[in-house]
Amino acid sequence: MSLLVVGSIAFDTIETAHRRVDNVLGGSASYFSTCASFFTKPRLVGVVGSDFSHEHIEFYRARGIDTSGLEIAEGRTFRWHGRYQGDLSSALTVSVELNVFADFRPKIPAAFRDSRFVFLANGSPKTQLAVLEQVAHPDFVLADSMNLWIETERAPLLDLMQRVDGLILNNHEAVQLSGRSNLIAAARKILEMGPRVLIIKKAEHGAFLMTRDEFFAIPAFPLGDVNDPTGAGDSFAGGMMGYLANTRAHSFAHLKRGLLYGTVTASYAIEDFSLERLKRLHRTEIEHRYQDFLRLITP
Amino acid sequence: MSLLVVGSIAFDTIETAHRRVDNVLGGSASYFSTCASFFTKPRLVGVVGSDFSHEHIEFYRARGIDTSGLEIAEGRTFRWHGRYQGDLSSALTVSVELNVFADFRPKIPAAFRDSRFVFLANGSPKTQLAVLEQVAHPDFVLADSMNLWIETERAPLLDLMQRVDGLILNNHEAVQLSGRSNLIAAARKILEMGPRVLIIKKAEHGAFLMTRDEFFAIPAFPLGDVNDPTGAGDSFAGGMMGYLANTRAHSFAHLKRGLLYGTVTASYAIEDFSLERLKRLHRTEIEHRYQDFLRLITP
Repeated sequence: MSLLVVGSIAFDTIETAHRRVDNVLGGSASYFSTCASFFTKPRLVGVVGSDFSHEHIEFYRARGIDTSGLEIAEGRTFRWHGRYQGDLSSALTVSVELNVFADFRPKIPAAFRDSRFVFLANGSPKTQLAVLEQVAHPDFVLADSMNLWIETERAPLLDLMQRVDGLILNNHEAVQLSGRSNLIAAARKILEMGPRVLIIKKAEHGAFLMTRDEFFAIPAFPLGDVNDPTGAGDSFAGGMMGYLANTRAHSFAHLKRGLLYGTVTASYAIEDFSLERLKRLHRTEIEHRYQDFLRLITP
Repeated sequence: MSLLVVGSIAFDTIETAHRRVDNVLGGSASYFSTCASFFTKPRLVGVVGSDFSHEHIEFYRARGIDTSGLEIAEGRTFRWHGRYQGDLSSALTVSVELNVFADFRPKIPAAFRDSRFVFLANGSPKTQLAVLEQVAHPDFVLADSMNLWIETERAPLLDLMQRVDGLILNNHEAVQLSGRSNLIAAARKILEMGPRVLIIKKAEHGAFLMTRDEFFAIPAFPLGDVNDPTGAGDSFAGGMMGYLANTRAHSFAHLKRGLLYGTVTASYAIEDFSLERLKRLHRTEIEHRYQDFLRLITP
């Protein structure tokens, strides 16, 4: 079933203790749609500059991603330069150039307005709300956010939380948004603020899913060799929403399985820099790791 | 089946943002044996000072703990004063008085030397080795350690690791001991150093169990109201080893279930200060939460 993603497309420069890569393909919408493309044909809405390489657009298309909502604007593509410390648990932002992304006012093509599954990748809540206005009657909308918007655009974020089905945050964002230091108490508080479904991502510590009545928690897939955690959260959301859109369902049982698929796609994404591992990935590998993961976490 | 624990018995002074308690019962052997006592009759070896209250000894006995290895020495009982910050994730040690624990040379009573399950609570690896010398032929020995011994007594610790079946560490200790920042790589490295079984505790992020061929990970039990995390690790080990000793087994399937029982006993321990929640706990509550936990983590 139709899955729409609205988010960023970026050129990333990434440094770890072992390697540096310059101006590689990145951005929330790239990671999300690539991971979702193993399950369904995502509809991508985003903006790039005139410096964007045609080869990347060809890659999206080869993955079955509908790029008819990809705007090519005058100017340079969004750029992010990050540096990871030893254990890769947090990135230091060396520089950000918003470039064409600064004036991004997403226009949802007419053919995308009937999308039933929608992912509002991290962005200004005002922009996220403007996207929602353009979608007719979605079945399941999931929104991401970040510390910046929690600090600077709290009112529109609270408004957005009333209008989406689900919110996906990392543990730090959940504590910040709720004002509760205990993560379970934080999650309960956030559910009182609007969304029916809350997903908390904890990087190498796994994730959990909470509604007012139900709860499901999983550890991360055990990886001894992580090379680049960039895009892990969006890869997680992409695998999850791709699975849901493909099954046309969002019951708690489906959300649980979505969490597992999201964990699997994210685990592949972080094995290599940029989208390199995802470019080499086959659907059968996803199924194999899904089965392995089930075995490692089933009591 | 027989379960021996050798560890500390302490008077703790604990401060959180909400409350302070002074000179309450604590210590690794107290938490461990109390939690294990819901499954079996643990044999306790430890030392207290002449200031130790008879009421605490009565408590151990009422819980079915064999206190015939409890030494009462001239002097004061071991004292620890800790202060937790807002999210309770780490304790600042305000003061430590080793007192009678400084000269503790555990003597295992003759009647305890046939113990089949043994927990060597955190202590000098030299002391832990000396305990092992006094146990005839245990089936399953689990040892705990800490940053201090990893730094200052590495050689005896490496020796100990060759002689135990399992090692239980928190994530920070595993990284320190192995020199690997990735926790999965750290665990693999530690298994190469000797023990057949490694258990990594990650507090609110759960735990995992690893052998050379197998792996099992779980999240923590979701608690919105944690009051005092002191003793969580020993309560975890106590529930786990109590379950194993009771079933007289330590297969991987049993270890997995032990991890769940350990999570449950630890979750109760941290609901209140000192051993207060454990004093009010019933075995039926453990079973109920075990079933709840299964439901919350089963894919």
